Amino acid sequence: MQRYFASSELHVDDSFTLDTATRRHAATVLRMQPGDQFELADSRGKVFTSTITDLDPLTVHVDEDITRDVELPVDVTIVCGVAKSQKAELITQKATELGVSRVVFANSQWGTARWEATRMRRKLERLQLIARGAAEQSHRNKIPQVDFLPKLTDAKKILADAKLIAYEESAKQGEAGQLIQTLSAHPRSLVVVFGPEGGIAPTEIEQLTAAGFKNAALGPRILRTETAPLYLLSAISALTELRKDE
Amino acid sequence: MQRYFASSELHVDDSFTLDTATRRHAATVLRMQPGDQFELADSRGKVFTSTITDLDPLTVHVDEDITRDVELPVDVTIVCGVAKSQKAELITQKATELGVSRVVFANSQWGTARWEATRMRRKLERLQLIARGAAEQSHRNKIPQVDFLPKLTDAKKILADAKLIAYEESAKQGEAGQLIQTLSAHPRSLVVVFGPEGGIAPTEIEQLTAAGFKNAALGPRILRTETAPLYLLSAISALTELRKDE
Repeated sequence: MQRYFASSELHVDDSFTLDTATRRHAATVLRMQPGDQFELADSRGKVFTSTITDLDPLTVHVDEDITRDVELPVDVTIVCGVAKSQKAELITQKATELGVSRVVFANSQWGTARWEATRMRRKLERLQLIARGAAEQSHRNKIPQVDFLPKLTDAKKILADAKLIAYEESAKQGEAGQLIQTLSAHPRSLVVVFGPEGGIAPTEIEQLTAAGFKNAALGPRILRTETAPLYLLSAISALTELRKDE
Repeated sequence: MQRYFASSELHVDDSFTLDTATRRHAATVLRMQPGDQFELADSRGKVFTSTITDLDPLTVHVDEDITRDVELPVDVTIVCGVAKSQKAELITQKATELGVSRVVFANSQWGTARWEATRMRRKLERLQLIARGAAEQSHRNKIPQVDFLPKLTDAKKILADAKLIAYEESAKQGEAGQLIQTLSAHPRSLVVVFGPEGGIAPTEIEQLTAAGFKNAALGPRILRTETAPLYLLSAISALTELRKDE
């Protein structure tokens, strides 16, 4: 069943009116009619079946609470050196499917791309829409937030129980234990910094390390900048959501 | 250092001449000169540093064996319902980075796309080139093979120690143990079938199940057809290549 997101708390038997973008998708793209149903996730991450009572504006009756927890047990923020538009879109879409809580892009010393302040608002709006669409499609209970930081090392200002740097050099040196060790402490939140295509500069590593970030390898192969966050999120799911026995 | 692949066995102090596509990349794109070095993986997966002795044809002296095992401990074949070109390219590129051994595309009952026999050769050649490029970039020791099967259920003819279906309905029913259980038997080879965008038909599931395939969920979220193989490969790496303690 199609899933949409509501911007406020919902309760069974509420009548709720959706925004115009959702109306356009439901009425024009999917040609839904009064009486048709979809799933609606509210601002708390609760999910309800709902039935269309009016098309213009799109209004539903909230039917039944069908909430099932599909969110990662760890609140993961990824901080990525900025990438070209297409790669930023791929990271945002796939990381959303794989359960990320927050996607942050940041300019960095060695990055081959930079985001300028003038075009920032449109860029973030577009990426936020992609996150919303991917959250609907993957039946997430929450839409990840997409943000920007002027410097990669500003990641040290993000509050989290655990902090990692996905550092390619660690993999080359045979590091293979940091991610599992970090997860074994059952952090509720985790922030992970990924270098841009040009790599992370030693001074950036130093600043992040001084702020408590630890270097972690994501397997022995060299991953592209847009692949590493997808490995991380899949690995966290495998290590925390998959079980040893049925 | 740049990595290329040689089509035969190499030994230290050999002189070896590379193919014209590699020559073009080294001489024209990277503007390499005699005396410049690159890494060369041979047909057995051994890796050597090598020094250019001649540019036309591109000939090297094989210097030193620097082989380091970066291949997944399980030989993984993914069988994917065919997707539009761009998605097939994404799957091939990312699965290569993440350690796949063989990528097979297959027409299926409910797939929204089909590959026709007339254009197959060009399609596979293009995807094989993408696999080669991604293997170079991610410093794999081997280039994954890209193939096609006329039917998704032909996957049952593939020989492997373990056989799985990545089945969305399993996730909805709360299945979460099959992948770890399968890996705990330390299979040397694993084949995993992924449905196309339209999903796997019940008769296809039946045929594969009768041939020993088991349904496995890849976490509780719904993944797009091109994301599921990337989750699988990352999960296998996390569960077999990452260690508990340093």
